[in-house]
Amino acid sequence: MTDLELLARADAIAERAYAPYSTFLVGVAVLARDGVVIEGVNVENGAYPLGVCAEKNAISTAITQGYRPGEFEAIAINASPCGGCRQWLAEMGFERVTFRNRGEVVTMTVAELLPESFELAD
Amino acid sequence: MTDLELLARADAIAERAYAPYSTFLVGVAVLARDGVVIEGVNVENGAYPLGVCAEKNAISTAITQGYRPGEFEAIAINASPCGGCRQWLAEMGFERVTFRNRGEVVTMTVAELLPESFELAD
Amino acid sequence: MTDLELLARADAIAERAYAPYSTFLVGVAVLARDGVVIEGVNVENGAYPLGVCAEKNAISTAITQGYRPGEFEAIAINASPCGGCRQWLAEMGFERVTFRNRGEVVTMTVAELLPESFELAD
Amino acid sequence: MTDLELLARADAIAERAYAPYSTFLVGVAVLARDGVVIEGVNVENGAYPLGVCAEKNAISTAITQGYRPGEFEAIAINASPCGGCRQWLAEMGFERVTFRNRGEVVTMTVAELLPESFELAD
Repeated sequence: MTDLELLARADAIAERAYAPYSTFLVGVAVLARDGVVIEGVNVENGAYPLGVCAEKNAISTAITQGYRPGEFEAIAINASPCGGCRQWLAEMGFERVTFRNRGEVVTMTVAELLPESFELAD
Repeated sequence: MTDLELLARADAIAERAYAPYSTFLVGVAVLARDGVVIEGVNVENGAYPLGVCAEKNAISTAITQGYRPGEFEAIAINASPCGGCRQWLAEMGFERVTFRNRGEVVTMTVAELLPESFELAD
Repeated sequence: MTDLELLARADAIAERAYAPYSTFLVGVAVLARDGVVIEGVNVENGAYPLGVCAEKNAISTAITQGYRPGEFEAIAINASPCGGCRQWLAEMGFERVTFRNRGEVVTMTVAELLPESFELAD
Repeated sequence: MTDLELLARADAIAERAYAPYSTFLVGVAVLARDGVVIEGVNVENGAYPLGVCAEKNAISTAITQGYRPGEFEAIAINASPCGGCRQWLAEMGFERVTFRNRGEVVTMTVAELLPESFELAD
């Protein structure tokens, strides 16, 4: 599956978002290394800081299915990932991140999206 | 499906949690009104405040599948839900919440778990 | 200082809130056991889940000043605290919580606001 | 005040952190354009995702004092800021970010720390 095909999946699922407060519908598609695609959307809450972004939704769904960090290859998002989600992409070890921003489709590595990120001491 | 059967599902899925920081494995099972069960686990992050609780994981997975607030009947959790997750249960309109706390199994309504909660003006 | 005087402080500070997305201005006043009052407001972010509630703002300001859990007596809020903030009130050991909800002023304990809350094993 | 002097303030305040779960003490010092310094520390919660990072603490304290986005010049942190906090730095319009990472002191712009960030439609 190409990054653009993955992005088409993200675009399509976005309509499932529960975003009555921002009305900003975000869709995500995660490609695991075994070829499986897992989708997610943003889910907002009346107490705004309690909401969950689409990236976290898709990844936590995958974790529930049994996937672990290091088993993800690519993710596509119909918008630029917020900083909080970039931290998740770092934790989970994604190779490529494709998203729409200001009318363009961009593909970057996590190291490019979140440079100089911290590493927890082992 | 009984609340105790739902709790058994929550207990079983907890081992899938990604909780390397707290080592506290939480499992959740949501029962939708159509009889479908959706599971979730907690997913932590090295930046602790960015983690996602098991309840939010299960519910956001269900939202991605197409479920909406008002279509959920019951939820079971292998631990007492934090306040943040209680706010989600209120937003989503659950009828019953079953969980383990201090060695007992408890079933309560959301109104009991989160009394005097705010309502957004329509 | 009475709970109603504390609530008046919460009402007054609310105008400092940075809430361009919800336009919902929340103000909080915390009364420490030594008589000092610490204020807070909600601070939102374009990525909604990254926002900080007014209660967390006031309490974290107090922590920076040197206060610790157990050194807080009362808190007043110009709205009902969300579940996430109730969990903070539990962690910090407040005695009384006063807030406006549906046109009334309510004073409750944290145990009433967050019944059956979890306790971390020691 | 130089960036290194600001970092010294961040280093010093870190001991006030309430971090019983991670034992990772983070300190922050914000320099407003009028020369005032506002400090913050991380405040954790037993429900990990409900914690507040030191950057958010310092900035929300400043907002309560009356500062607005665009009125901040520099921030210093005794550790690399997580992605969620980088999103706050973008919202607040900081010019310079100084922090310790892997034994080095780094100063970067927000655009470097969070490239290709989203902009909300006006």
